[in-house]
Amino acid sequence: MPVFLDAAAPDFETRFAALLGAKREDSPDVDAAVAKIIADVRARGDQAVIDLTARFDRIELTPATMAFSPEEIAAAVEAVSPEDRAALEMAAERIRAYHVRQMPADQMWTDPDGATLGWRWSAVSAAGLYVPGGLASYPSSVLMNAIPAKVAGVGRLAITVPTPDGVVNPLVLLAAQLAGVDEVYRIGGAQAIAALAYGTDTIAPVDKITGPGNAYVAAAKRRVFGKVGIDMIAGPSEILVIADADNDPDWIALDLLSQAEHDESAQSILIADDAEFGQRVAAAVDKRLETLERRAIAGASWRDFGAVITVSDMAQAAALSNRIAPEHLELCVADPVALAEHTVHAGAIFLGHWTPEAIGDYVGGPNHVLPTARSARFSSGLSVMDFLKRTTMAQMTPEALRAIGPAAERLATSESLEAHGLSVRARLDHLNR
Amino acid sequence: MPVFLDAAAPDFETRFAALLGAKREDSPDVDAAVAKIIADVRARGDQAVIDLTARFDRIELTPATMAFSPEEIAAAVEAVSPEDRAALEMAAERIRAYHVRQMPADQMWTDPDGATLGWRWSAVSAAGLYVPGGLASYPSSVLMNAIPAKVAGVGRLAITVPTPDGVVNPLVLLAAQLAGVDEVYRIGGAQAIAALAYGTDTIAPVDKITGPGNAYVAAAKRRVFGKVGIDMIAGPSEILVIADADNDPDWIALDLLSQAEHDESAQSILIADDAEFGQRVAAAVDKRLETLERRAIAGASWRDFGAVITVSDMAQAAALSNRIAPEHLELCVADPVALAEHTVHAGAIFLGHWTPEAIGDYVGGPNHVLPTARSARFSSGLSVMDFLKRTTMAQMTPEALRAIGPAAERLATSESLEAHGLSVRARLDHLNR
Repeated sequence: MPVFLDAAAPDFETRFAALLGAKREDSPDVDAAVAKIIADVRARGDQAVIDLTARFDRIELTPATMAFSPEEIAAAVEAVSPEDRAALEMAAERIRAYHVRQMPADQMWTDPDGATLGWRWSAVSAAGLYVPGGLASYPSSVLMNAIPAKVAGVGRLAITVPTPDGVVNPLVLLAAQLAGVDEVYRIGGAQAIAALAYGTDTIAPVDKITGPGNAYVAAAKRRVFGKVGIDMIAGPSEILVIADADNDPDWIALDLLSQAEHDESAQSILIADDAEFGQRVAAAVDKRLETLERRAIAGASWRDFGAVITVSDMAQAAALSNRIAPEHLELCVADPVALAEHTVHAGAIFLGHWTPEAIGDYVGGPNHVLPTARSARFSSGLSVMDFLKRTTMAQMTPEALRAIGPAAERLATSESLEAHGLSVRARLDHLNR
Repeated sequence: MPVFLDAAAPDFETRFAALLGAKREDSPDVDAAVAKIIADVRARGDQAVIDLTARFDRIELTPATMAFSPEEIAAAVEAVSPEDRAALEMAAERIRAYHVRQMPADQMWTDPDGATLGWRWSAVSAAGLYVPGGLASYPSSVLMNAIPAKVAGVGRLAITVPTPDGVVNPLVLLAAQLAGVDEVYRIGGAQAIAALAYGTDTIAPVDKITGPGNAYVAAAKRRVFGKVGIDMIAGPSEILVIADADNDPDWIALDLLSQAEHDESAQSILIADDAEFGQRVAAAVDKRLETLERRAIAGASWRDFGAVITVSDMAQAAALSNRIAPEHLELCVADPVALAEHTVHAGAIFLGHWTPEAIGDYVGGPNHVLPTARSARFSSGLSVMDFLKRTTMAQMTPEALRAIGPAAERLATSESLEAHGLSVRARLDHLNR
């Protein structure tokens, strides 16, 4: 049973705070093991990666077979059905079209003092994308990570994907091909992150690593952060649906279950302004859980972390939504655009009855890598910006230096940084000669 | 003596790699102590902060005196000289004018399939800014952190600044006032970071924490990351000057020293296409070091980490610059704009003879919080973006769902995520009824 809360109940604040504060994931502490693996890869390079892959994935690699060859990729991609290919191509095209619009512009201007100022964006030279193996090996995630990198202009994009017992998902290779990935390595775990960050004889180091992974991968990403850039460390998925009574309870139930089926730690929350409608959705969830393929996972998530909250009006719903700061927010109400004005903290908003969150996972266009665990309060989903960096530019003329240099000198003096002031003063003295 | 390298020498690659790889800072391992302080503040709130402040800063606070009162701020600000005030006001105005231009635009469009897509930027609700006490209590840093936050639209901006033995820098309070800071607390160290991240009865929690600090502050920021957002963990400062022989060696020497005087771990590098000019700059550094107030610090930095590299031409200089990926890059050459086209990895570029780096520290306009330790390969300086987050938006119509829904369903099936597919299918079935 999920929890049922009524925002008008006297104990609501306590119970809502408990819901917000509930710890949904207990990551095993694998940090010591990961530190050892990283040290091993730094010391022994390729051979360490080969040994660890033999141990964890039960396959024997050589430096020559670490990467998929173009022929291997072509053969695997050949096996993809035309329907799957068409769907993946549509997804790639729509994701690309959305992310192209994210490209920021350089700026350069001259201000009234004669100072030319501005900034310039440039792409990270090389990026690595971690793709999980096995069940969670999602081709859609390859597109969502690789396409923004290529749109940003990353010159070299490498993928690592473990192939336990030699098994690989051909759709992952097709997604890599469609996204323009340059290198695909059949390695995984902390050893793959270490190889990307520090490089080996076979794998050149990258500057930025993104992509989801298990506890080992997450711990390795935390450890190499600083040496390279990383994206967020994502927690279990979440959805908040705000719905009025004018919805098909079964649709809302399926939207809630589409998060719940990801992971037993996923969280699905419904906020409704009609208690009876909330009950009908909960009943529809139960009914769907009878037959859903992943009912064990989805059922555990709904039972342990699901919630149905009744509010008196949509203003209250928006206020609670801002406190939840959900990864995914569906607004199934008569005027979703108006309500969205008030729901300011969310990773992605899905507006209206015809926009189930699953559209955003695959073909909508926006990225599906989004901030979890309330971090939408201060962070954003993956975008081309994650593969760009900004260099600020400044050029003074003698006139500009005359106008603003003395203030810099004064502040340097007040901060006891004499050489700072002298570097300005030497030039001003020259101009005043 | 700094190292002198010649890019044409047979051992250059080895020596340059050693220069790049040199570890300049050994941070003490204070993580265990910091974990204890954070746990204490989470458990005992205000009282823990008061006890720790008594211990580390030797002042006795109460919840009522934790924040500076408006009267205290007014009195302190009163003591600032008109010259210092004017300089700080000019700096604030120029920094604001630059950062206002960084505000990104929302976008919303409808694509040929009828899907309305876009994104919306919104400000972090509350931010905290750490300001060091004592010698490194720089009013310029207050402006550089607080102004982007306020330009972004942060509603509540709190500063913490320790006041050991009750001493406070009035310019810090004036800078806070000019930047529009809402609350100023006289606390510091890991306890200040913990109070900002988790809140106490007196200090409401924030969503994002920025600002420089010592090893305790850095360790605390790492620990609270995830609960709140943080900016970068900055390392010691760096400058790379690329100069031809047509420069006054003394100006270049002062520019190199203006980084070196920050910290014994700071690094100043000169790349010149004329070996003799490099020697003249080194001689000028030595001469300035005879009288510089901070000669002990600047001298140690120059001796231990300084470098003078001779190259055959400016193309080679740009290539080396990209490998160094410096925090600050000065281009003192005839055509700095042309050279800047080739120096793609740098936090900030200062163009031409009239733009000493110190201008950028105070009054240029661009931010002086910049990526260190080669992280300009993948990250950017502080900006309004650090105080904004992006929410992606998507709204399908029945027609749009008909056009792209089947592809989403197909991909969901291929990823064995049945409820994802069903959430689309239920709507499509309704439309096809």
